[in-house]
Amino acid sequence: MDSAAAMAGSDLAAVFDRMSAIGARPGAGITRLAASAEDGAARRLFADWMSRGGARIAQDAIGNQFACFDWAGEGASWVFAGSHLDTQPRGGRFDGALGVLAAGCAALDLDAEIRAGGFRPSRNLAVVNWTNEEGARYQPSLTGSGVFSGALPLDDALALQDGAGIALRDALDTIGVAGETESVPPCPEAYVELHVEQGGVLTEAERRIGVVEGTWAARKITAAWTGRAAHTGPTPMADRRDALLAAARGITAFEAIVAAHHPHLHRSAARLVIEPNSPNVVAERATVWFELRGLDVAELDIAGRAVIAAFEKAALETGTRLEIAADGLRPPASMDDRLAALAGDIARACGFEPLVMRSVAGHDAVALQNTGIPSALIFIPSVDGIAHHPDELTHPEDMKAGLKVLTALLRQLAEGGFHAEP
Amino acid sequence: MDSAAAMAGSDLAAVFDRMSAIGARPGAGITRLAASAEDGAARRLFADWMSRGGARIAQDAIGNQFACFDWAGEGASWVFAGSHLDTQPRGGRFDGALGVLAAGCAALDLDAEIRAGGFRPSRNLAVVNWTNEEGARYQPSLTGSGVFSGALPLDDALALQDGAGIALRDALDTIGVAGETESVPPCPEAYVELHVEQGGVLTEAERRIGVVEGTWAARKITAAWTGRAAHTGPTPMADRRDALLAAARGITAFEAIVAAHHPHLHRSAARLVIEPNSPNVVAERATVWFELRGLDVAELDIAGRAVIAAFEKAALETGTRLEIAADGLRPPASMDDRLAALAGDIARACGFEPLVMRSVAGHDAVALQNTGIPSALIFIPSVDGIAHHPDELTHPEDMKAGLKVLTALLRQLAEGGFHAEP
Repeated sequence: MDSAAAMAGSDLAAVFDRMSAIGARPGAGITRLAASAEDGAARRLFADWMSRGGARIAQDAIGNQFACFDWAGEGASWVFAGSHLDTQPRGGRFDGALGVLAAGCAALDLDAEIRAGGFRPSRNLAVVNWTNEEGARYQPSLTGSGVFSGALPLDDALALQDGAGIALRDALDTIGVAGETESVPPCPEAYVELHVEQGGVLTEAERRIGVVEGTWAARKITAAWTGRAAHTGPTPMADRRDALLAAARGITAFEAIVAAHHPHLHRSAARLVIEPNSPNVVAERATVWFELRGLDVAELDIAGRAVIAAFEKAALETGTRLEIAADGLRPPASMDDRLAALAGDIARACGFEPLVMRSVAGHDAVALQNTGIPSALIFIPSVDGIAHHPDELTHPEDMKAGLKVLTALLRQLAEGGFHAEP
Repeated sequence: MDSAAAMAGSDLAAVFDRMSAIGARPGAGITRLAASAEDGAARRLFADWMSRGGARIAQDAIGNQFACFDWAGEGASWVFAGSHLDTQPRGGRFDGALGVLAAGCAALDLDAEIRAGGFRPSRNLAVVNWTNEEGARYQPSLTGSGVFSGALPLDDALALQDGAGIALRDALDTIGVAGETESVPPCPEAYVELHVEQGGVLTEAERRIGVVEGTWAARKITAAWTGRAAHTGPTPMADRRDALLAAARGITAFEAIVAAHHPHLHRSAARLVIEPNSPNVVAERATVWFELRGLDVAELDIAGRAVIAAFEKAALETGTRLEIAADGLRPPASMDDRLAALAGDIARACGFEPLVMRSVAGHDAVALQNTGIPSALIFIPSVDGIAHHPDELTHPEDMKAGLKVLTALLRQLAEGGFHAEP
C-alpha cells in the first residue's frame, strides 16, 4: 500500500512521480517488465490509488486491470480509457504509465464533478491497465488488449514463455495476479488512449496534441539458425556450422537489402538469443527478432520475401538450417474516423489545434480498434522523439494539455456523445 | 556423499559414470559451469572418492582441489596430475573430467602398489582439479591453473564476474568453497595431464596416444559497440545508432577478412551479449568475444590489427562507439621436451607408438608450462573430433590406453625419474 500515492488524488504529477519510482535505477531508467515483481508493485499502486478514489477494481484472466466507475448503472454501456504500466528494460517513465495515470486523474475529476451535480453520465467508465503491451519479456506485444478484444486466445497468451522459459501464467501467478474477478466490464462503446508520441513529428509541427488517424503495418519475423556446437579451437574451419555467423550475415543482409530497395521502411533486429553463448563453443543456435514497418502491406510482403531469401542464403553459406519460427503481420490500422473527429473537435475546444497523424508503433488502442472497438489515440510530444530510453521526456505543460483534452473527451463520451456505427 | 562412487576405487569406468551424471540432462549433455551447484557436487564427489582412497584433500584460495598422497614425506618434492571438472554449457563428459578421474585411478593403483611394497616413491603425488578451466562462465579460461602458477593475480581472479554480474569469489562461496586450507602442496617438479584430443588427428594417424609438443597461440579480443537505445518503430532510421547491427557487421567482416587473408587461422565469434535485448528496443550495447588461433604470433598480430580496423569501420558506419574491452594473447607453448620424451618412451613401453603433435586448444598443462612448471600433455582420441558438444565420445579401449600410460608415467615420476633443468 503506497498511501502517499493513494493520497495523490487527481494530481497527475504527484501520482506520476510515485509510479516513476517503481523499477527505477539511477541512470538506467525504468525496468518494469510484464508480470515481474516491479509490475506487481505498479499494479498495486494503481489499484490502491483508484480504489481510494472510489473505483471498483476488476481484473480479467490475462491480468488486465479495470478501475470501474459504475456511474450509470448495470445496464449502461461503457467507455474505457487507459494504456499500460509495463515498460521496456531500461525504458522511460512516460510510455504507457502516462496514459493510465492521466485516465485515472480524468476519471477522478469527472467523478468529483458528477458527485457535485455538474453533469449526469449515461455511461460507465473504466480506467484500464493492459497486460504486457511492450512485448519485451513476452512476445507478441499487446497481449492483454489482444486477449480482451478476442484477437489472441487466452490459453495461447497464458502459455507464452519468456527467455528463461517461465510461462506468463506462472509469472502472473507469482505476483498474485490469477484468475478473473467478478464483474469485468463488457466491451466498451469507445476506448481512448493518451500516449507520448515517441517521435518528433508534433514538435516539428509545433503542435501539442496529435490525433492518430491510423498506424503503420508491422511485419515481425523471428528467424532461427541451427548449426552444431563445437570447440572453437581444434574444430577444423571446414567442419564448423556456426549459427552466430549465420545470424550475423542475416542481420547484415537484412539491413542492406531493405536500405537499398525499401529505404523508407523502418527496420530492426533488436533481440538475439544464442545457445550456448560461451566464448569457446561454436554457436549451436541463434534466434533473431526482425521487424519491418511501413504503410503498405504489399511492400512489406515483397521486402519480407527478399529478406527471408537472404536468411536462407546465410544458412546455405554456413551449413546451418533456417527455421522461420514466427512471421506475423500487424495490418495497418485505421482508427475510428468519427471518434478521431470528435477528439479533434474537443482538442480545438480546449485551445489546441490538433495534428492529424499516423503512428508507427502499435498501441493497445490499435489492438482494440482492429477488432472493432472504436478507439481514439491521442499523442502529446516526446522531447527529441526519444523513446524506449531512460532519457524519454514529455514536458509538464504537454502532460497538462493531454490531460485536459482526455478529460473533456471522456466527459463527452460519458454523457453519451458518441455512438458506434451499427 | 556419493558412496557408490566413493566405493568405485580405481575402477575408472565406474567413477566416470558417476561423475557423468552430475549436471547431465537428456539430449543436452553436461552443464557443470565453474562454481555452479553442479560444480560443487562434482567437487564433493571427487573429494569423497579420493579421501575414501586415503588421500588428504587440500584446497587453495581459488578453489583448486588437491588430493594429496604424502608418500615421501614433508621434505620431498611433488608430482601433480589432473585436469578440470567444470564443463561448457551442454558440454561433453570427457573434456576435463577424464583427466582428473584417470589421475585419481592411477594414484589409487600406485598407492596400493606402494602399500604392498611394490616400489618406494621419492616424491609425493597430488591429483588436481583446476577451477574454471573452460572459461564458459568466467573469462579468462584456465583461471585456477593461472592463479596457481602465478600468471593471474588471485584478487583479479576472484573479482571476475559472470554474465549475471556474480563475482567468482561469491559463486565459490555459495558452493562452500572459500579460503585456502592448510598444507596446499608447493609447485611440483612435474605436472602430467591426460586429455581427450578434441580433434581428429590421432584417429587419422591411427594412433591411440598423442604426446603434445606444443600448442597454438590464441588471441582473444572482446569488442563492445555502444549505440543508443531507441524505439524500433517510430525512431527515424537516420537517427538510429544500432549496436547489434554494428556487431553483426563486425562478425561478418571478421570472418571474411580472416578467411581471405589468413585461411589457416582458426577463428570464432561465439559469445554475444546485447543490452537491453528486447525486440522493440534498438540495441544500446553489443559485446562480442572473438578468438583467433594459429602458430605464428606475428600473423595473429597482423590479423588482429586488420579485424580491429574492420570493427572500427562497423562502428563508423553505424554511428556507434567501439571499445576493445579485452585483447589478450596466449603465446604458443612449447611443452617440456624431456618430459615429453619420457612420456613417449613410456607410451612405447606400454605398447603404444605415440604421435608427437600440437594442441590447438589451451589446457591447464599449458598454463603451468608457460610459467616454468615442466608439464606433459597426453592425448587420447575423440570420435570424429567432436568436442564441446553432447556427442563428445572417447572409446573405452582408448581410455584404458590413456590410463595405462598415465599410471606408468606417474610411477616413474614418483620414483624420481625426471628432474627439472636448473
